[in-house]
Amino acid sequence: MIPDEEFIKDDRVPGPTKEEIRCLVLCKADPMGDEIVADVGCGTGGFTLEFAKKVHRVYAIDRDPQAIKITRENLINHGLGENVKLINEDAEKALKRLGDLDIIIIGGSGGRLSKIIEVGASKLTSHGRIIVTSILLETKLEAVQTFKRLGFKPGIIDVNIARGHPIKRGTMMLANNPISIIWGGLNEDKLEG
Amino acid sequence: MIPDEEFIKDDRVPGPTKEEIRCLVLCKADPMGDEIVADVGCGTGGFTLEFAKKVHRVYAIDRDPQAIKITRENLINHGLGENVKLINEDAEKALKRLGDLDIIIIGGSGGRLSKIIEVGASKLTSHGRIIVTSILLETKLEAVQTFKRLGFKPGIIDVNIARGHPIKRGTMMLANNPISIIWGGLNEDKLEG
Amino acid sequence: MIPDEEFIKDDRVPGPTKEEIRCLVLCKADPMGDEIVADVGCGTGGFTLEFAKKVHRVYAIDRDPQAIKITRENLINHGLGENVKLINEDAEKALKRLGDLDIIIIGGSGGRLSKIIEVGASKLTSHGRIIVTSILLETKLEAVQTFKRLGFKPGIIDVNIARGHPIKRGTMMLANNPISIIWGGLNEDKLEG
Amino acid sequence: MIPDEEFIKDDRVPGPTKEEIRCLVLCKADPMGDEIVADVGCGTGGFTLEFAKKVHRVYAIDRDPQAIKITRENLINHGLGENVKLINEDAEKALKRLGDLDIIIIGGSGGRLSKIIEVGASKLTSHGRIIVTSILLETKLEAVQTFKRLGFKPGIIDVNIARGHPIKRGTMMLANNPISIIWGGLNEDKLEG
Repeated sequence: MIPDEEFIKDDRVPGPTKEEIRCLVLCKADPMGDEIVADVGCGTGGFTLEFAKKVHRVYAIDRDPQAIKITRENLINHGLGENVKLINEDAEKALKRLGDLDIIIIGGSGGRLSKIIEVGASKLTSHGRIIVTSILLETKLEAVQTFKRLGFKPGIIDVNIARGHPIKRGTMMLANNPISIIWGGLNEDKLEG
Repeated sequence: MIPDEEFIKDDRVPGPTKEEIRCLVLCKADPMGDEIVADVGCGTGGFTLEFAKKVHRVYAIDRDPQAIKITRENLINHGLGENVKLINEDAEKALKRLGDLDIIIIGGSGGRLSKIIEVGASKLTSHGRIIVTSILLETKLEAVQTFKRLGFKPGIIDVNIARGHPIKRGTMMLANNPISIIWGGLNEDKLEG
Repeated sequence: MIPDEEFIKDDRVPGPTKEEIRCLVLCKADPMGDEIVADVGCGTGGFTLEFAKKVHRVYAIDRDPQAIKITRENLINHGLGENVKLINEDAEKALKRLGDLDIIIIGGSGGRLSKIIEVGASKLTSHGRIIVTSILLETKLEAVQTFKRLGFKPGIIDVNIARGHPIKRGTMMLANNPISIIWGGLNEDKLEG
Repeated sequence: MIPDEEFIKDDRVPGPTKEEIRCLVLCKADPMGDEIVADVGCGTGGFTLEFAKKVHRVYAIDRDPQAIKITRENLINHGLGENVKLINEDAEKALKRLGDLDIIIIGGSGGRLSKIIEVGASKLTSHGRIIVTSILLETKLEAVQTFKRLGFKPGIIDVNIARGHPIKRGTMMLANNPISIIWGGLNEDKLEG
């Protein structure tokens, strides 16, 4: 994973999602290399950059032009972006205009999570999956319930990670905020775990 | 417990220990009312204030004069302090000069944790107990090992607490840094749990 | 707190709620001594026993007769129970028949959490508070949303605690399952923290 | 990652390391494809199988013949193993006889962690790294301190993950035991994160 510190940041744009969470989301997505991926609410570009290294094509979607700008800068800064299309648009509209998608990452939903999952699901290939990261109590449950309603079998993990920081007297453990990863797909067998 | 926000703070002084951790330390200490307590490394005064409400006498010890000043201000601000003695001195020296102690809380040790536990143990009544809070990997183990060496049977819990904060779109869970509580006493039966 | 191991247990009855969670719930309840408390879904009796030691009167409510039986046994076993009334009834019905309540603990709700909170709220004194413990994603949010609807200002913490167990080669940290504590009351100022 | 349930298990052999931890260790190892990896204390084979899919060669080392047997069965069961050599020997002896290593995973150390890290370090290529997983308070610190002594710049994260399990009334979050991942290498720049 790209270390958190190696991202250009902007106070007005959330992210990047912490290294360990990007790692876990990539494992849940399990890309083989030929996938088409949508990163919904790309923010600083954390997921976009990681997937750009591993899949065929990434659509990075954000309604905030500043997020698109920062994602572009981060892509350039890491020599990535050839297979990335940046889309500065509302997520539902953008997803509707896209073709089939193998992996949809939803890191930000602007209060429209269930709608975005629904539109995303309509674009999902048969082996596709949707992965949501959530820091709000409300959106965790919204993701689980929307997946259930769509006949997806959802999985959810709550992740609490603390990182050691060397200080003069020892190793101080500092917490990252808890985050939930919720995932689902049509192909239950692949998602049993 | 006194809410975290109701403490006067000073950037140069650590604390107050978060409300939930103060609560758990008080439960581990299990004061009946007649105890004599030492709060070693009293910092902002978090433990001193809570114990002042529940026990016979509290010695608040800190080598930093600014910590003593802030602890005094917090005591006054909450109408407490009649049964508290503030001691601006090195912990080992201060403990040596004190008489018997029923409960010793060590929230800060300035790199001298095992020595402080040893001196504290020499002052401990037969049913007494020592409780250490630690945010450093090194001091967690130092506490456990020192308790073992002294024939105390140590207990340890790692505590990760996140608190919900209402934001516009829902309830955001924000993590407190992980903290360990390590406790031990001569009277093993009381500390089995 | 009473150590977890000192409760008589029954495989068919949940609980006791772990020592540290009982401790945190007591701190959130902050009893002064003269309170009337209802323990809804008393299960093994964890909260009932702790409050019996600290308040004027406890109503222990559970619709499962086996839970009432185990709670009674645990009360007797710890020399408690004089100020406890055991009620083997559906929570809503039981609460409706009771008078004013200062503290309502809801550890089990049988799928009727919002209804129980509503009925409980109608019995709550002006300085009273309701505290819910939850291990389900759905009931966490249900508690928060019901409190909001009632005009209570809810607080929520997610608690992850691991306990050290001595094994031959060291101290193994074993996790308790995460639990959320959600609380609310009419008197916002008291619950700000 | 291979789901936890898809491993053949044996009560006498630890593991497999949970899916999410395998994922995080792989991210910290960051294999490019041509690496030579040693999995020390391979147990059930969790890390061996994952690395077998991603690197040039894996040495799976365990002094317990039963662990070697189970790892072999799991490799066969997943159609892996062509690039894996199983070594039923004490870790230090086994490592000493091996040539250069790019990645060393230490999931089990039998109380000889610092020695194993030292021997491993002597075999490590200039861009190599050692990654330790630990569930004991003692070995967490031992790993950090040994890395420091060797001039490696260690990183450490504590990982607490809970997984949602669907039950009749909702989604119950069940905790995995906390685990620490400690990593280090000679090439500080690569490990800054």
